[in-house]
Amino acid sequence: MRTPAFVPLASTATVKSLDASEVEALGYDMVLGNTFHLFIQPGAELIERMGGLHEFMGWRRPIITDSGGFQVFSMGHGSVADEIKRRRGDRESRILSIDEEGVRFRSYVDGAERFMGPETSMEVQAALGSDVALAFDECTPFHSGRDYTARSTERTHRWLDRCLSWSRANAPEGQLLFGIVQGGVYEDLRRASAERVATSGVDGVAVGGSLGREKDEMREVVAWSLEPVPDAAPRHLLGIGDVDDLLAGVAMGVDTFDCATPTRLARHGTALVAEPERRWRLDLHKSAWAESREPIAADCPCPACREHTRGYLHYLSRAGELTAARLITLHNLTFMAALMRGTRESIVAGRFDEYSREVLAGGSPY
Amino acid sequence: MRTPAFVPLASTATVKSLDASEVEALGYDMVLGNTFHLFIQPGAELIERMGGLHEFMGWRRPIITDSGGFQVFSMGHGSVADEIKRRRGDRESRILSIDEEGVRFRSYVDGAERFMGPETSMEVQAALGSDVALAFDECTPFHSGRDYTARSTERTHRWLDRCLSWSRANAPEGQLLFGIVQGGVYEDLRRASAERVATSGVDGVAVGGSLGREKDEMREVVAWSLEPVPDAAPRHLLGIGDVDDLLAGVAMGVDTFDCATPTRLARHGTALVAEPERRWRLDLHKSAWAESREPIAADCPCPACREHTRGYLHYLSRAGELTAARLITLHNLTFMAALMRGTRESIVAGRFDEYSREVLAGGSPY
Repeated sequence: MRTPAFVPLASTATVKSLDASEVEALGYDMVLGNTFHLFIQPGAELIERMGGLHEFMGWRRPIITDSGGFQVFSMGHGSVADEIKRRRGDRESRILSIDEEGVRFRSYVDGAERFMGPETSMEVQAALGSDVALAFDECTPFHSGRDYTARSTERTHRWLDRCLSWSRANAPEGQLLFGIVQGGVYEDLRRASAERVATSGVDGVAVGGSLGREKDEMREVVAWSLEPVPDAAPRHLLGIGDVDDLLAGVAMGVDTFDCATPTRLARHGTALVAEPERRWRLDLHKSAWAESREPIAADCPCPACREHTRGYLHYLSRAGELTAARLITLHNLTFMAALMRGTRESIVAGRFDEYSREVLAGGSPY
Repeated sequence: MRTPAFVPLASTATVKSLDASEVEALGYDMVLGNTFHLFIQPGAELIERMGGLHEFMGWRRPIITDSGGFQVFSMGHGSVADEIKRRRGDRESRILSIDEEGVRFRSYVDGAERFMGPETSMEVQAALGSDVALAFDECTPFHSGRDYTARSTERTHRWLDRCLSWSRANAPEGQLLFGIVQGGVYEDLRRASAERVATSGVDGVAVGGSLGREKDEMREVVAWSLEPVPDAAPRHLLGIGDVDDLLAGVAMGVDTFDCATPTRLARHGTALVAEPERRWRLDLHKSAWAESREPIAADCPCPACREHTRGYLHYLSRAGELTAARLITLHNLTFMAALMRGTRESIVAGRFDEYSREVLAGGSPY
């Protein structure tokens, strides 16, 4: 596949509001399926009986599946749990226990007790038949202290070994396994984790966990997590999708990025634009756009920009219309695809630094 | 435009989940905009300032706007009010008064007191700039007795005269005005209303109101409402969209039909199929389809059928995914477009009765 690339989220076996063929037409080579969500609903066995995740969702290009760790731990630690609760109306979803074996928790769909550990995660990813599986990890939250983070990272490393063993014995042919670097915001833990993961025998390295409170800290944490990784190893950065962070990641040798932001923002009425001073975000909900007859971006080739005004999108979005979620999703993924295409072309032309500076100064990615 | 035709609902300035250009690509020549909804949100003045409804929603073909009567009276009489309440979470929407002038009611968006009468309806439709406007009518509910229906129908006729006067003096150039035949389920009232409307000077005749409890009664009521109408007058049948009813309507000379059913069913997981014994409805929510690897219809050219299984659509629909609403909407509108194309072709070929019999026996419309 073409790299560096942004990988849209198809967490629930769909890039929300789009058909798989449309995602392909937008120029994406890979999507990310969510092990945790698909484990809960409709279940990995069902997807396996339906021919695997590619066949189930009609996506014929590579799929990376996350380990489930981020979601399962978020139910206890906060962050993602809030989103799940809002969406599912289930206030009782909680972790019941975390130990060496794995995590016991209640399903957000039916409240049933479920378990996920390294082998479960690998089994689910094998059943889904993804091209790249991620080893099960504890995603240590932002507020964890150093002691907890150190112990958790050690356990994540032991889980990695169990995932590797399982994968060698049972993974579907051709499925790669990436390990996840943890270690919180602590330089020594990050560097040690990166070395441990890179030398474990995995096919690639992903950087996960809490990356810090500020962008500078985040980039530092990513650098610690990647410096020990050999140049030849594929590098995936989990959950990062802001324009400046992507460019910083590319400069650090990241090959692939996944992030909910472009598609989630779209569903909440925010479009991505070439305006660093707005953090590349245009909030179409704002009354300022009610009578705007401009498109989101005059040079964007997406249907939202070719056919529609900010005023119409403002109205649709305020009215909660499905068409708004869809049009802005198409726009945001067109923006991200253009940004990454520009990135790849500038690398080939030996002018990535220049491209990066242009984009950071508000240059259009189209 | 090509007739007989089915007119999809773009009630809120969008065919829900689709872009206007997609509706055109499906083969539709006209959509229906909802005077009442657009009056409430975002307001007709705003749409007028944005260049009119065609420009606002990016639809370049004809638009028919309903009169607002159906929705405004539904708030008092029931039916549509229930849907509005579910969607808007506003349990207090109610009619405050109905008199000769019009209807006073509370907005479902902000609870503000609003008024709509014949002139308001015409003003709104003029501001929207639709190609066909409908005269303001009271949509008498199913349970109205003969006395109320007779008095209401008389008032609707007086409102028609006011709409005609307003339209002659103020309507945008080229905007046609259709009158609406009312009269409940009473033959004499229907026939009298049809004669009154047909001879009033309108450009076309629409049949509205309660059409009865059973399909046979409905067809009888439509027949009474259309027999007095001259052959040359365009005929629109409001709110009818079942396959058998469309064919019956075509046999009675109806040119255009609008109905929420195909698109609303889609958003609730029901696909239209060539199966009269299921009333042409396939409920994809049913567990029976969880592992089905069949498409909705093997001969349907829509993306849902070309790319996906009933099992995947079942899962998406159960999970409340936007992609389900969209894919099934595309399917249902592909089905309706095929049915009406087949109808038109059979009329040209002088074999409509045969086509109708084939479809009623389960023949595929594709």
